Amino acid sequence: MRARRNHGRRVHRGRVFELHVDNVTLENGITLDLEVIRHPGAAAIVPLTARGGVLLIRQYRYALDEDIWEIPAGTRLPGESPLACARRELEEEAGVTAGIWTALGELNPLPGYSDEVIHLFAARRLEPARQKLDADELLEVREVGVDAALEMIDAGTIRDAKTISGLLLANKAPDLVLGGG
Amino acid sequence: MRARRNHGRRVHRGRVFELHVDNVTLENGITLDLEVIRHPGAAAIVPLTARGGVLLIRQYRYALDEDIWEIPAGTRLPGESPLACARRELEEEAGVTAGIWTALGELNPLPGYSDEVIHLFAARRLEPARQKLDADELLEVREVGVDAALEMIDAGTIRDAKTISGLLLANKAPDLVLGGG
Repeated sequence: MRARRNHGRRVHRGRVFELHVDNVTLENGITLDLEVIRHPGAAAIVPLTARGGVLLIRQYRYALDEDIWEIPAGTRLPGESPLACARRELEEEAGVTAGIWTALGELNPLPGYSDEVIHLFAARRLEPARQKLDADELLEVREVGVDAALEMIDAGTIRDAKTISGLLLANKAPDLVLGGG
Repeated sequence: MRARRNHGRRVHRGRVFELHVDNVTLENGITLDLEVIRHPGAAAIVPLTARGGVLLIRQYRYALDEDIWEIPAGTRLPGESPLACARRELEEEAGVTAGIWTALGELNPLPGYSDEVIHLFAARRLEPARQKLDADELLEVREVGVDAALEMIDAGTIRDAKTISGLLLANKAPDLVLGGG
């Protein structure tokens, strides 16, 4: 505890997160207002196919006004474990279930102003299931070779932080034979 | 353009970013309110030392109420180029200047609700300069071997997305001999 919260207020309650402004005194005596996004956390999945591919999502993101490449991911529901969230999102977004799950670690996407934690998983032994997109999700699922996906990072085609971290972590995970199913 | 902004309002104007709520009609006809953080962008630097190390920042982050490991980074000033921002932040936070700069690409930390873009750079030929911390920055600079830093990612000790992406991208950049100065 290197800061004391003197008081705070919720500035906005949104669909996914809340924005708070807290008045804080740091251990060096400085007092200031800090914006903090309070977020329920998320899970993101690197779905690896038996033939050496990875399932990527091509999704429209309004904040960037662009279609971008991402791994499947979503926000945790109340009381939902990271793995349960990952299983649900993989099925809803990518339309597959997985027989083998491997934790790849946790990610703080924006520690400067958000408490969001993204739990990363690799998923293998994929089986077709029913995709269930939300009405506001504009996305397509595409299978890309793992090597091609890594080249898309080098080329700047993949720029999403969780996707870069997930693919590179999966690629160096000692117990993950990429594409080995 | 796969969405039309019907109207919007700024919910909050903070120290670093603004939160907007836009009423948007997607190309599939769905109309909804979307929260968007409008952020001026940032730069983050992987500072590589001549003896095979990388300069990391051990920084208190109020949003997580934790001291975390990060690469030096900061928000762009109005009109400031990504590289100028990177040079300034490297000097202010890490107390060094660099003779060789290499662009490592761009990162979207949170495409789901923020337009922030982080420009990643590797910096070499480091020379001591004067650190100039802001009053609200609680941080220390530590030199860590590149291999040790990569192990800190595997161990879950480094969880910051820009830091994981930056270190892994620097490690696989063909023209970067890590630690070669």
